[in-house]
Amino acid sequence: MSKATRRYVKKDFPLHNVRRFLEPGPIVLASSAHAGETNIMTMGWHMVMEFQPALIGCIISSANHSFELIRKSRQCVINIPTEDLAATVVKIGNCSGRDIDKFDAFGLTAAPGTHVRAPLIAECHASFECTLADAGWIKKYNMFVFEVVKAHVATAPKIPKTIHYRGDGEFMISGAETSKYRKLFRPGML
Amino acid sequence: MSKATRRYVKKDFPLHNVRRFLEPGPIVLASSAHAGETNIMTMGWHMVMEFQPALIGCIISSANHSFELIRKSRQCVINIPTEDLAATVVKIGNCSGRDIDKFDAFGLTAAPGTHVRAPLIAECHASFECTLADAGWIKKYNMFVFEVVKAHVATAPKIPKTIHYRGDGEFMISGAETSKYRKLFRPGML
Repeated sequence: MSKATRRYVKKDFPLHNVRRFLEPGPIVLASSAHAGETNIMTMGWHMVMEFQPALIGCIISSANHSFELIRKSRQCVINIPTEDLAATVVKIGNCSGRDIDKFDAFGLTAAPGTHVRAPLIAECHASFECTLADAGWIKKYNMFVFEVVKAHVATAPKIPKTIHYRGDGEFMISGAETSKYRKLFRPGML
Repeated sequence: MSKATRRYVKKDFPLHNVRRFLEPGPIVLASSAHAGETNIMTMGWHMVMEFQPALIGCIISSANHSFELIRKSRQCVINIPTEDLAATVVKIGNCSGRDIDKFDAFGLTAAPGTHVRAPLIAECHASFECTLADAGWIKKYNMFVFEVVKAHVATAPKIPKTIHYRGDGEFMISGAETSKYRKLFRPGML
């Protein structure tokens, strides 16, 4: 199995700004814990819903082992992996926590959070501790609305090389290129 | 005002595959029409919710002029702009359809759809005609659940250089780099 080695020094990050990492649409790893068991799932269907409280909507198929762990514990951590973890991200999405311990199998480090019992993934650029804010559409759409209650972000690099899923086994790697249009924005519209 | 000139030859695209363009998380332009008025808004908060029917969840602030046009008409078109339109995308997001006709102001071409009355934006790489599938969380979260009922995608380039909003006036430009991991996927997990 692959061994991920990269670690980060992380700092506390303002909750209303977690959109800076989620709005560009990276694939994320959702980690969870319930009744003595932990798991990790690869998640591509998520969106920012509100700045403050920092709400994130996610679709988690009920076929995933993580579904019940997250639904029952009412918590998860949304972790942002980078390019170096791309193969691991795919492998995590293609096996089930029913069969293996994914932290162990993929050499990932479960780090303790401060607000939830679900573990952070130390090898990820950022980790957002989440509590379930609205379960109302879980049954209808497998949709979870989470509130980010604590955010940990690497001090460097400033801009992570995130991976974005295009379907059919292909990922777009976040470009190094950045376009700045700050001056075109009206105040309050950034 | 800026004049966009790029046009595309487009073909019909399978609805269950529109995720290929939306899941990587690009900023999109939502176009709408109601009672003789059209509008365009810049939208960054959206996610894929289901393959078939092709459901897309979107947050549209009720402060936007488009909010009522879309809510009342129960339709919109989700268009995917590319790098060449980045400045226009910012400008569209920083003015209101209350004050100007955005198609006219920004030199964009309103093309007719086949399933909805909302216009397609001809200068965008892809346009997805949508009908409102669920209005249940509009009041609670400004959340619209759309079903894509017709998809138009440019025949070339195969991979559009989409723009992804990082907040604070910064955009990540979709990287040219693609990583392929098709062989790591279990059948049915692509």
